[in-house]
Amino acid sequence: MSFDRLISLIRSKENPTVMGLDPKLEYIPAEMKETAYAAYGHTLEGAAEALLRFNQALIDAVRDIIPAVKPQAAFYEAFGWQGLRVLAATIAYAKSKGMYVIADAKRGDIGSTVEAYADGWLGVTEVESETYSPFGADALTVNAYLGSDSIEPLIRVCRTFDKAVFVLAKTSNPSSAELQDIQINGKSVYETMAAMCARWGEALPGQYGFDGVGVVIGATYPSQLRELRQKFPRLFFLVPGFGAQGGGGADVADAFDANGAGAIVNASRSLMCAWQKAPELGFAEAVRAEALRMKNDIIANIK
Amino acid sequence: MSFDRLISLIRSKENPTVMGLDPKLEYIPAEMKETAYAAYGHTLEGAAEALLRFNQALIDAVRDIIPAVKPQAAFYEAFGWQGLRVLAATIAYAKSKGMYVIADAKRGDIGSTVEAYADGWLGVTEVESETYSPFGADALTVNAYLGSDSIEPLIRVCRTFDKAVFVLAKTSNPSSAELQDIQINGKSVYETMAAMCARWGEALPGQYGFDGVGVVIGATYPSQLRELRQKFPRLFFLVPGFGAQGGGGADVADAFDANGAGAIVNASRSLMCAWQKAPELGFAEAVRAEALRMKNDIIANIK
Repeated sequence: MSFDRLISLIRSKENPTVMGLDPKLEYIPAEMKETAYAAYGHTLEGAAEALLRFNQALIDAVRDIIPAVKPQAAFYEAFGWQGLRVLAATIAYAKSKGMYVIADAKRGDIGSTVEAYADGWLGVTEVESETYSPFGADALTVNAYLGSDSIEPLIRVCRTFDKAVFVLAKTSNPSSAELQDIQINGKSVYETMAAMCARWGEALPGQYGFDGVGVVIGATYPSQLRELRQKFPRLFFLVPGFGAQGGGGADVADAFDANGAGAIVNASRSLMCAWQKAPELGFAEAVRAEALRMKNDIIANIK
Repeated sequence: MSFDRLISLIRSKENPTVMGLDPKLEYIPAEMKETAYAAYGHTLEGAAEALLRFNQALIDAVRDIIPAVKPQAAFYEAFGWQGLRVLAATIAYAKSKGMYVIADAKRGDIGSTVEAYADGWLGVTEVESETYSPFGADALTVNAYLGSDSIEPLIRVCRTFDKAVFVLAKTSNPSSAELQDIQINGKSVYETMAAMCARWGEALPGQYGFDGVGVVIGATYPSQLRELRQKFPRLFFLVPGFGAQGGGGADVADAFDANGAGAIVNASRSLMCAWQKAPELGFAEAVRAEALRMKNDIIANIK
């Protein structure tokens, strides 16, 4: 019901990073794609199969050094239900290898509808006498533009099934300022959102000092990371924007508290495409080398 | 690239309503479920098959009198990829019957990720030499908490494939006020959002006076409907909250302009469950009677 399972994995691997699984066909080695196309043709099913093989190879390459993966739903929905099928398979594969899975789907809707999202992504769905866990992620990213009653059903599911959510506060894109930075009585919209998250999180207390409603806050805004870290000591941060989006170890250091805790940093493209930049290493070693470089860059800056 | 196709259907059917397809197993007649379970068991696949049969029966019942359907993605994701498979099948079925399809998925993310959502829901995805339209909806609901650069990829796809989007402005749930009603220099967040939508919509001009970026604004807030209708004459409104959520014809009248145009009103549960309230009519006639009651209630209030 909190981020304790994730924090425990971060501690044991001494690595506060998460691998984004946002696959595109052009990121995938030709031989993986050809195997998939040979079986299913140039179809959505063939493409989805290539995505799955790619994800499995990435997970195999780093599962002993990176604690978590974060598949981005959009890159699977682009391939229709076949893409969603391999998203579910990717989540199951990562969990079977002991990794924590954050489904980056940024869902948000009114209460009765959010219940259905919560069941599908984190909880269970009943079909008469039988119970299923459709996607089975450990955490879900959420958009709370709709307010508290859009979050409460998620919190109920988190309590029941030991899951957690990350709510969008300050995103890493250039125009995030348009709405999120608007000042209201001296407080920005993103700070107002973070304060709501801190309050919602009280219902999901964790034993390591962080509650089960975290926030997404981009690595591209270090001063805002620092501000929120100081104001909300129990908020756990998911920090995208490392690597290909421009952030480095120094930029994300302020996401962590004095104990070097409180955040997990995501990199997607720099890990997924590492094999293209260092072909001499081979696929697995190239990903692994980049994963270790990222880990060391972050650790060096938070010590 | 605008709502012209939808507006044209609303005109020819003289009915500014959309049927929400937000199915739950308890809404489905026992005999439809039993047929599905007999083929696939009490599985996610069996449940998904029941959802599809239910949707097809609803569409068959009203396709000559209601111009559009709005499937809510959450109620399909609750059944995993099997649910998404029948969502795609439902969209294809509604389109084959001449209906306009609004995918209510409330997607929102940073630019490069929104591109993938746009391709999957409205546009096309390429797999080497082949091109596919994965979900093939006509319009998509969108959450623009991330700002302009999260909307631009959608607008590009709308221009290319003659599609449109509805952006969340003021939602129908009780706690929508927490963020959406905050006042900034005398302007609410939802009005700020509506103003951004009006600006974005200029890139998608329609011939009937409305642009291709509409807004979602709940029927539960009539005074706010009135305010936005007056301030933004070219914004097309999607108005949820009719029927089971409490709104009636009088509550939604202010969504329409002096010509009785500019909005489409959604009802989900009151249509989906009409057969339970009027069992003597039989499934199709019960849905149809409720659809006509809703149409007449709205038309009577906007004349």
